[in-house]
Amino acid sequence: MAEIDWKPNRDLDISIQVQIIQYIKSKINNGEWTVGTKLPPQRELAALFEVNRSTVVSALEELIADGLLETKIGSGTTVCNTTWNLITKPSPNWHDYVQAGMHEPNVKLIQAINLAEADPSMIRLGTGELAPDLLPSAEISSLLRNADTLPLSYSEPKGSYALRIQLSQYLQKRDINVSPAAILITSGSLQALQLIAGGLLKKGSTVLYESPSYIQSVPVFQSAGINIFGLTKKDTDITQKIRQYMRTNDAALFYANPTFHNPTGRIWDITERQRLLQACQQLSLPIIEDDAYYDLWLDTPPPPPLKAMDTQGTVLYTGSFSKSISPGLRIGWIAGPEPVIDRLADSKMQTDYGASSLSQFAVERWLATDFHSGAIEKTRTALRARRDVVLKLLQENFKDIADWVKPLGGFYIWLRLHQSVPIHTLFEKAIQRGILLNPGQIYERNDTQHLRLSYAYASIDQFEYALKQLAYLIRNMKK
Amino acid sequence: MAEIDWKPNRDLDISIQVQIIQYIKSKINNGEWTVGTKLPPQRELAALFEVNRSTVVSALEELIADGLLETKIGSGTTVCNTTWNLITKPSPNWHDYVQAGMHEPNVKLIQAINLAEADPSMIRLGTGELAPDLLPSAEISSLLRNADTLPLSYSEPKGSYALRIQLSQYLQKRDINVSPAAILITSGSLQALQLIAGGLLKKGSTVLYESPSYIQSVPVFQSAGINIFGLTKKDTDITQKIRQYMRTNDAALFYANPTFHNPTGRIWDITERQRLLQACQQLSLPIIEDDAYYDLWLDTPPPPPLKAMDTQGTVLYTGSFSKSISPGLRIGWIAGPEPVIDRLADSKMQTDYGASSLSQFAVERWLATDFHSGAIEKTRTALRARRDVVLKLLQENFKDIADWVKPLGGFYIWLRLHQSVPIHTLFEKAIQRGILLNPGQIYERNDTQHLRLSYAYASIDQFEYALKQLAYLIRNMKK
Repeated sequence: MAEIDWKPNRDLDISIQVQIIQYIKSKINNGEWTVGTKLPPQRELAALFEVNRSTVVSALEELIADGLLETKIGSGTTVCNTTWNLITKPSPNWHDYVQAGMHEPNVKLIQAINLAEADPSMIRLGTGELAPDLLPSAEISSLLRNADTLPLSYSEPKGSYALRIQLSQYLQKRDINVSPAAILITSGSLQALQLIAGGLLKKGSTVLYESPSYIQSVPVFQSAGINIFGLTKKDTDITQKIRQYMRTNDAALFYANPTFHNPTGRIWDITERQRLLQACQQLSLPIIEDDAYYDLWLDTPPPPPLKAMDTQGTVLYTGSFSKSISPGLRIGWIAGPEPVIDRLADSKMQTDYGASSLSQFAVERWLATDFHSGAIEKTRTALRARRDVVLKLLQENFKDIADWVKPLGGFYIWLRLHQSVPIHTLFEKAIQRGILLNPGQIYERNDTQHLRLSYAYASIDQFEYALKQLAYLIRNMKK
Repeated sequence: MAEIDWKPNRDLDISIQVQIIQYIKSKINNGEWTVGTKLPPQRELAALFEVNRSTVVSALEELIADGLLETKIGSGTTVCNTTWNLITKPSPNWHDYVQAGMHEPNVKLIQAINLAEADPSMIRLGTGELAPDLLPSAEISSLLRNADTLPLSYSEPKGSYALRIQLSQYLQKRDINVSPAAILITSGSLQALQLIAGGLLKKGSTVLYESPSYIQSVPVFQSAGINIFGLTKKDTDITQKIRQYMRTNDAALFYANPTFHNPTGRIWDITERQRLLQACQQLSLPIIEDDAYYDLWLDTPPPPPLKAMDTQGTVLYTGSFSKSISPGLRIGWIAGPEPVIDRLADSKMQTDYGASSLSQFAVERWLATDFHSGAIEKTRTALRARRDVVLKLLQENFKDIADWVKPLGGFYIWLRLHQSVPIHTLFEKAIQRGILLNPGQIYERNDTQHLRLSYAYASIDQFEYALKQLAYLIRNMKK
């Protein structure tokens, strides 16, 4: 869909209609709107240009007469030619290119979410990110202000050595022993998964995971031609499911997220952890342990990570400062056996020549000056208060139509509706009321009963309004 | 190869030999050195641990007796077991995983270069990066210092809107008209290529380029299953070569780098540019125009970019602030038709959720406050002086054994040796003298006659020493 980033200027001597025609022509002629680009509906165009609909209609008619636009019933107005095309051969058919790429496009629902997130008035009930007022902007400013010089060169293949030293010490507090040489700095933990997918796995191999899962919402493995297969943890434990699966199939990895699981918020106890690790060691099945939420325990510290119990190099341990300090820094890591880290560092160099050295420096200073433990305590206090209010609001609005488990850390409440709802309708209706939802379907394809709520992002006032609206919508759908 | 990041502590009561044994055991047992990991040669180990070689030998012998290490003639000492392996089943065979990944590992020579670059004493004659003292560290510090708040959240899918507005104005100065909606911020321009490879191209398709080329040194297309095919500009012009190729073959893209070409430093004149654009438009062959060096003209501004002449959306215009401001920021862009940019933004979200918002902010402030034009003028002056001295040194040392063309901008001098040399031997001999080379082979597979020199990185003193040494080495090889 063509994006309108301009309004007519009423102070000019040129008529509004001509200005609109010129604007659209320039978009087409400089190649920004290629053949096939769809224009917004007339009513929307009128609103965007702040003119009467009749002005828009006249302008479009002229462009249609020029042969630049065409209108088809059902598909609205699209660009069908460029002025150059009319006299020469057609420009590259970018449409075919857009369809051909190997990266699968994000599923529609996720694209809709990404788009809605750009609207600042939208209440984001499920966003997996700290609210801007919870981010330690002042602290990071002061760290940067006190720096004598900023590192502005490319960093080493594995990332800033100073940061890796700090990370090594930081992970020690989780009982994980890794040296700086066994750590790779990544641009967030999504990139960690991407590097693993591209750098270690064969096309056509399978990654197992506990369903529902965040991993279902990002096509990072699928884009690399790798299958993902979700095991559900019903009745029997996940380890048994893995063994069962491996009896008749082959898998390349198990993706685990045992601490404040996204989206369920669940935390694996020590027995489950030991059992998983043992099974995977016996099966020679490597584990990716995604531990992005470890720092965000709210009541008591979580059990040790799998990696802390791993004496055989079975676990690739990924994490991120996106959830605990700031997502915008885009700093995460992978820790694991050195030859694997070397290989992934090589892939990383091919991908983007390393993470921002400014961001790496900010995180390094952050850890070195121990801002982290103070700030994280503040974040925990804020999240704890938010969680408790949201739980109270759920109790008030949802107790007869849904259930949930109090999360002990992380961001998420996995709201289970007692009855299925038509999830796309609910999503649309909520959007109309300015509420953005993360339906369970994003995390498990056939889910129609869950919503992922996050108490990290929306304000308490927004939650009060939105949960009331949401309960009303759901009740009305059930009738 | 195992990395040693530790030295024995002479103040402890434990013998040095036992400390070494414990260190190696811990590396093996925590899974950092997996089965197959190779240890450095004994002499090197002794130097790294700062002990006698006999101490190393005794320590290794004990570990071999324990069954943890093995020594084979020709391949040195490798890890053959972990203590856990001795009692349970083997750990995941990471070696197979490392071999299996789809990203092709960097060619050995490039890996050797990446590694040597980590050694701060190495004189880097070909590094495509501004020397640390040419980076505007103080200016960027002051920009960040004067910021009220830092943006620390995720940015929009296409990148910070404020930065895209600035970029749109910045590109206007190159006669390029693109609106913010038609720009995607990337983590450097290598990522731009990666997104294009993954997001727009079919597996098995072919990207054409002018050989030699930087593109040959980064397997970004090949890793995505895309072929690259170099056309040489001998006798006839490249446009004819493209037409010729397309008569019997199909290609998906032409990769162009017409301004201060990497590695040749060459600049296409306006006629060549027009001819290329026209041919590609007729052939419906899209162009990637990589314009990372545009700002770094030293004598007169370059002709307008292809993109400035593109009225049909044929050109995807990529660029970066890595060469002109700071590589560590990792900020680049792609500008092109909006539907294409939308698609690539979607891929970018899947890849790493966007570039560092701290880096984006720094560049946005940089452009908004117009630090750029002042600083770039300073950088030009410095580069001009460096270029002229290096040309003088070449004249003194190489005039009878090589030739070169004075570059009008960018970083590179493409030194052509009058006679072929065994390039790996030269590379190794230079390394032994503390000189790191970028042989032409990196940019054209069979090249044995070129070196890429960069006057941007090494100091003048270093150039004086290194060029003298290099000329000596080459003269001696020819005998």
